[in-house]
Amino acid sequence: MNDFPDTLSITEEGPREGFQIEKSVIPTSHKVKLIDALSGTGLKAIQACSFVSPKLVPGWADADEVVRGITPVDGVEYHALWFNKRGIDRALAFRDKLHLYGTIHVVASEAFSISNLNRNREANLAAMRQQSLDHMAAGLAVGKVSVMAAFGCNFQGEVSVDQALGAVQDGFDIAAETGCSITEIALADTMGWANPKRIREVVVSVRKRWPQQVIRLHLHDTRGLGIANAFAAMECGVTHFDTTVGGLGGCPFAAHPGAPGNIATEELVLLAEETGVATGVDLDQLIAAGHFAEQIIGRRLPSAVLRGGRLPAVNESRQAK
Amino acid sequence: MNDFPDTLSITEEGPREGFQIEKSVIPTSHKVKLIDALSGTGLKAIQACSFVSPKLVPGWADADEVVRGITPVDGVEYHALWFNKRGIDRALAFRDKLHLYGTIHVVASEAFSISNLNRNREANLAAMRQQSLDHMAAGLAVGKVSVMAAFGCNFQGEVSVDQALGAVQDGFDIAAETGCSITEIALADTMGWANPKRIREVVVSVRKRWPQQVIRLHLHDTRGLGIANAFAAMECGVTHFDTTVGGLGGCPFAAHPGAPGNIATEELVLLAEETGVATGVDLDQLIAAGHFAEQIIGRRLPSAVLRGGRLPAVNESRQAK
Repeated sequence: MNDFPDTLSITEEGPREGFQIEKSVIPTSHKVKLIDALSGTGLKAIQACSFVSPKLVPGWADADEVVRGITPVDGVEYHALWFNKRGIDRALAFRDKLHLYGTIHVVASEAFSISNLNRNREANLAAMRQQSLDHMAAGLAVGKVSVMAAFGCNFQGEVSVDQALGAVQDGFDIAAETGCSITEIALADTMGWANPKRIREVVVSVRKRWPQQVIRLHLHDTRGLGIANAFAAMECGVTHFDTTVGGLGGCPFAAHPGAPGNIATEELVLLAEETGVATGVDLDQLIAAGHFAEQIIGRRLPSAVLRGGRLPAVNESRQAK
Repeated sequence: MNDFPDTLSITEEGPREGFQIEKSVIPTSHKVKLIDALSGTGLKAIQACSFVSPKLVPGWADADEVVRGITPVDGVEYHALWFNKRGIDRALAFRDKLHLYGTIHVVASEAFSISNLNRNREANLAAMRQQSLDHMAAGLAVGKVSVMAAFGCNFQGEVSVDQALGAVQDGFDIAAETGCSITEIALADTMGWANPKRIREVVVSVRKRWPQQVIRLHLHDTRGLGIANAFAAMECGVTHFDTTVGGLGGCPFAAHPGAPGNIATEELVLLAEETGVATGVDLDQLIAAGHFAEQIIGRRLPSAVLRGGRLPAVNESRQAK
């Protein structure tokens, strides 16, 4: 509890996660409008799009237009995702508007690497080595190691703490070879396997080995444990989280359609603010953005806060505290 | 963490909570079938019905027929809820089939007492004093003090730890006056105000003052923090929880229709089993019961596990542990 943070840094990934999974065509103007709405909530980082193959991810065929359309707000970073050289080049066209940086993506599960990336971990490391060089050649700092399937895997089953640590180490090895300076380790519970005890084990182990690194958690709520996992991480001092407004997104690996994806931004903001942790986010504005996201995709999102609402301000003394 | 339990005792309240809130008429046979399905999951306690006024709660007009219809399973307790003498009398007709006991219901929020019970706390205490005498006259042990709105209130706002403790004390005062022997304190987050820190404060305070009592939590997931709250309670040694299959039920006090009600039984079972706590519940059977509940009420329930599924048994070594 001594490590419990005073503030959280939340990266909003709703647009990127949400629009890549939708089967229907979302008009570009709606994507732009949602991102602009999120820009007004107090969020400081928004992952705005994905520069990926329109054949593989039709929902992001209009990534360039979306970035052109958004109205940047001072103090808000707009991020993007990509996985290859073509993606880097598309992103670089917007280097004045987007906050661009390189990430070394590693995988803690061999089976997931083969299933999801179509290459084994060794081949992925080779690709990431090359991509880091490409990033640096383009003048992009490579400061982040991001671990997929860090807490378990539908294809492999259990992922041990050692396997998670090994994947982080793989990323640092690439950084050392290519001369990158890593400042952040992101741990993704890609398929919703984590539980609060495992979160602590992994976070404590990572922190012990890399005490100077920022630790970021990218949590999924596939089985309803996401917010409990976030709280366990906060108690270990984790301050950086990826979330999606309304819980936009989903889980292609779930047993049934409609499973929750990332933890909902509103739920994390509510948890934080109610436990004395500042987020800088206006919950009312965020809820409004969540309801707008529901209009855009034409169905209800999993966020409980979108239904339950914030805690009613019935007692002024509460606000005064 | 030293208090972390080895086992949980879960009282399934899905039938009672779920059918009282539905607007459409659920056939009695479906209610019976769901309760019988739950009886086969390993759950040891099921709140089967509510003996309340059919005018106030039309969904439980058939409570007597439901109890007549269910097929009791050895080792499973079937509970019922009531609030007045008429309810006691209806329940007593099934004393061979139901596990009957008296509860002293108290409220931590004056505003909620007036709004929800149509009487202030003082009047409620008088009614509970009389009801305890009625229970004892009927030969029912009165062993439980149950606190509504123990963590906060939409009508009052903040409920302090002292107010929660005061409500518990009210219950013990009635028990002392009427000669009941209390063994259990139930704390209900009726409107979904709790957060993990507040759960700890209240549980630790209650345990300090009444160290011999079983503490039960009745948590609602109105704003998505329910499972995080359950985990915080488990870390304080709480072993008794009320839950509803699929998250059946709802919240009449929420900002928008469709807010989650009680925490979902599947989510708590998954949390427990994944953190090494035995529940005795077969998660596959429970998920099947949850899907059946969805068929009955004709819409999706909030439980993430009903969508995400249990952790896939891809690795036999996992099961062997």
